[in-house]
Amino acid sequence: MAVLPHALDKLATLLSRLPGVGKRSATRYAFHILSQPHEYARSLATALGELVTQVRFCESCHALAEGPECAICRDVSRERELVCLVETAQDLVAIEQTGTYRGLYHVTHGVLAPLKGVGPAQLRLDNLEQRLRDLGAREVILALSTGVEGEATALYLAKRLAPLGLVVSRIATGIPMGGELEYLDQNTVSRALAGRRAMALD
Amino acid sequence: MAVLPHALDKLATLLSRLPGVGKRSATRYAFHILSQPHEYARSLATALGELVTQVRFCESCHALAEGPECAICRDVSRERELVCLVETAQDLVAIEQTGTYRGLYHVTHGVLAPLKGVGPAQLRLDNLEQRLRDLGAREVILALSTGVEGEATALYLAKRLAPLGLVVSRIATGIPMGGELEYLDQNTVSRALAGRRAMALD
Repeated sequence: MAVLPHALDKLATLLSRLPGVGKRSATRYAFHILSQPHEYARSLATALGELVTQVRFCESCHALAEGPECAICRDVSRERELVCLVETAQDLVAIEQTGTYRGLYHVTHGVLAPLKGVGPAQLRLDNLEQRLRDLGAREVILALSTGVEGEATALYLAKRLAPLGLVVSRIATGIPMGGELEYLDQNTVSRALAGRRAMALD
Repeated sequence: MAVLPHALDKLATLLSRLPGVGKRSATRYAFHILSQPHEYARSLATALGELVTQVRFCESCHALAEGPECAICRDVSRERELVCLVETAQDLVAIEQTGTYRGLYHVTHGVLAPLKGVGPAQLRLDNLEQRLRDLGAREVILALSTGVEGEATALYLAKRLAPLGLVVSRIATGIPMGGELEYLDQNTVSRALAGRRAMALD
């Protein structure tokens, strides 16, 4: 006999498809939602509906937007000569939250992964060169992930963008702030050593 | 400037009210939902709506039900003389999943907690005595939690139900199966010692 009411089990099954959420946590969430005033479940349902109807991708940079262009592309105070390439909209948020970057973005929606069938055509790169020309960009910062696929994609992009004659840079790899050498992997430590910089004393 | 589209931020804020979910995980869930085919968000919204419209509480035992009475109360094959008191519908599920209990339930929806303003009137106990009489119950099993409040509630119920002249039992406390004495708290070990039983050899 089914112990859980059908509607509760159905919601739990759907929630268990969220990243890192198992059936047990999903069932707990469903019970929690049921225990709250019904207004909560209704607000969630409304927010889900609004999410898929209101959020789309920016036609220029492919970040999340609520209209044809995202808020960053529309912001005339941003430096238009600096374009940062990121893999996902979440990565864009991580950089925005530093509050130190004032340029534009271009979201690739992934990295090259030939084994998974992801080639350049599967990424959002179609309008990249044209956009860089239109913006009069002088530097492209590759802020892709530092795994094998991210590195390969960075190399691919550096070669592809070379004819445009702009600076293509890669964000620094090294020891994270507060990181202890003892606990870091060899690859990070050797990259940090190779990437050492003379200290400027003045 | 708001980095996240309003609709995404709104959903993340609502999801962060789920138990054990912080704003960071909630934002991750919202991004995940957005990255899926829109059908997923719509299914979730529908399931949430169905949850609050279809699931209610059983008028007899206060467990979750999809009609006036829950599936267990309606199941004529269950032993009606045995009633197990549990705190929550989740606890009921935990017992049902053992597959070893064939009696009925009564869900109290909490335990007595005077400091939080939870007295007997705040629990679902109004119809308890009448129900036990109607069922012709011969035993009530108190499967409440084993914390201070659960113990106090068990004691309260044992006294309250005494006039009915039925057996009031408490589920066993002791070492969990596979548990190692070394890692268990003193309270559990001392309760297990006090609750020791002669081994039946035959």
